[in-house]
Amino acid sequence: MATMKDVAKLAGVSLGTVSRVINKASGIKPSTLAKVEQAIRELNYIPDEYARGLKTQSSKTVALIIPTIWHPFFSEFAYFVEKSLDSLGYKMLLCNSDGNSEEEHKYIKMVKQNKIDAIIAITYSDIDQYIYSGIPFVSLDRYFKQKISYVESDNYQGGQIAAQELLKHGAKQLAYIGSHSKYPNDTMRRKKGFDDYLKEKNIEFFDIYLQEPVKDFEPSIKELLAAHPNIDGIFCHNDDRLLNVKHILEKLGYRIPDDIQLIGFDGVSSSKDWPIEISTIRQPVPKLAEGAVSLVMKKIKNPNIKNEIYKYPVTFREGNTTKNY
Amino acid sequence: MATMKDVAKLAGVSLGTVSRVINKASGIKPSTLAKVEQAIRELNYIPDEYARGLKTQSSKTVALIIPTIWHPFFSEFAYFVEKSLDSLGYKMLLCNSDGNSEEEHKYIKMVKQNKIDAIIAITYSDIDQYIYSGIPFVSLDRYFKQKISYVESDNYQGGQIAAQELLKHGAKQLAYIGSHSKYPNDTMRRKKGFDDYLKEKNIEFFDIYLQEPVKDFEPSIKELLAAHPNIDGIFCHNDDRLLNVKHILEKLGYRIPDDIQLIGFDGVSSSKDWPIEISTIRQPVPKLAEGAVSLVMKKIKNPNIKNEIYKYPVTFREGNTTKNY
Repeated sequence: MATMKDVAKLAGVSLGTVSRVINKASGIKPSTLAKVEQAIRELNYIPDEYARGLKTQSSKTVALIIPTIWHPFFSEFAYFVEKSLDSLGYKMLLCNSDGNSEEEHKYIKMVKQNKIDAIIAITYSDIDQYIYSGIPFVSLDRYFKQKISYVESDNYQGGQIAAQELLKHGAKQLAYIGSHSKYPNDTMRRKKGFDDYLKEKNIEFFDIYLQEPVKDFEPSIKELLAAHPNIDGIFCHNDDRLLNVKHILEKLGYRIPDDIQLIGFDGVSSSKDWPIEISTIRQPVPKLAEGAVSLVMKKIKNPNIKNEIYKYPVTFREGNTTKNY
Repeated sequence: MATMKDVAKLAGVSLGTVSRVINKASGIKPSTLAKVEQAIRELNYIPDEYARGLKTQSSKTVALIIPTIWHPFFSEFAYFVEKSLDSLGYKMLLCNSDGNSEEEHKYIKMVKQNKIDAIIAITYSDIDQYIYSGIPFVSLDRYFKQKISYVESDNYQGGQIAAQELLKHGAKQLAYIGSHSKYPNDTMRRKKGFDDYLKEKNIEFFDIYLQEPVKDFEPSIKELLAAHPNIDGIFCHNDDRLLNVKHILEKLGYRIPDDIQLIGFDGVSSSKDWPIEISTIRQPVPKLAEGAVSLVMKKIKNPNIKNEIYKYPVTFREGNTTKNY
């Protein structure tokens, strides 16, 4: 049986183009349209139900795919996504992907079978699978390879605020500690905002920036502090990293915040009444959740709608890993 | 249109009996059976699809209803429930009830409409609605009014261990601080275990035990410590309560654990890699989740199966709210 890939190959176009033809998107060149339709006929290619536009009934269900619900950032996000979906009469299927893209495939199949209407995903794997299947999909954080609808916090601004606050709290020698996925995403702009702010002020800074998965930051941290013993302010890529860095530094004999001040990113709380008392850049999680639901509803109504980005400002939350000033 | 209640009234039997007749349960007295069947005919009562046994297809979906996913205990439980369901080819719908029983009604309706197969619920509202609808339902923690299948930690043993550990860590004058729902449930046995252990050892103890919702524990705590200034060890009903009690005590000038030692219950971690560093009784959450899924699968296969209880032992987890000894 012919696949979409076979059609793309025979027509000499990209998978995305075939998908756009099947989904009756506008703005396709007549010559391209003719080539794709010819290939579909030749191969006797049968698009799946969803792509054929035979979707007649709604399941009123959206899947939320996250790495793990057992994490305060994702559980807060999931809480507000479910609340928001519920207010619109939608149910939420929850999937812990644990970084396994097989899990994500299952849900993509369910959308194609009309068992669910759409997917909101925080995925750290390749997202081409979502794009080419043309299903209603909204992401948290941007991906650089593909155009999609997504919500995000202003990561760049967050990096700038972190640098600014460390200086305001009296730190003189700054560093950044973080890691990054091999797939570029917008969280990388946290570092860019931090770097740019300090460069503009002609303030020297250092960093540890490793590709995931990282086994242990301790050797890199030891090395950094041996080379630059005056480092007294560190911006950590997220709150998990901050807790890990704090643990390593305390083991090495540093007092936090007296010797080294730390600022994280996310601003998580374990529950509504239970904040984590660290200094951090707070993402507006309820807004991100509502934005994702609003975007996914637009996509359900019209899967070919133009992609949109909802970006929200972040704020500094004072905690016990920076000094009083 | 006649309801199940009308049938029960006319037949002069309980709702539960009508439900058992409709669900073709065994062990019903022939005279009772005749009365109920006569009432059904007279009233032209039409049981819903589910009760009629017309359930022909499975949605392979189970709903998990919890007060809020934004809490480390529930997010850990939900994580392992989803993992366990996924391994059996089932999906998980997640519902935050926020204590609103209207939300629960929606999902009960979905089971009746064959949109989902079963419900796992942590509900603090009345559960008769689950029982009389005869749908596959498994609870976390026991309810005293109704017989159901449920999983639970050994709450009584947990209370005993808490008393024992406080004494072992050098506390001499003990107290219990907690609250309880107006619906009795098994978590009340935490206090019973604590009390019994100390009574048996002829050790005097005190308590604060208020009916929910409790606005503020501070006045009661002030009063307790004014009357019994030597209290130096407190068992808190759960980890949330411990954090709240710790906060109040520190505000009143007590040092934890130097002046007063605290032990909580639940043993939550914010995420897999992020424990909350308090001394606490740890519930075996992965086991509770797997047990709940195993029970719910039995109920899906046969809704009239005998109710079962899976009870798991708990353990003490040393943290920074008890002294080294």
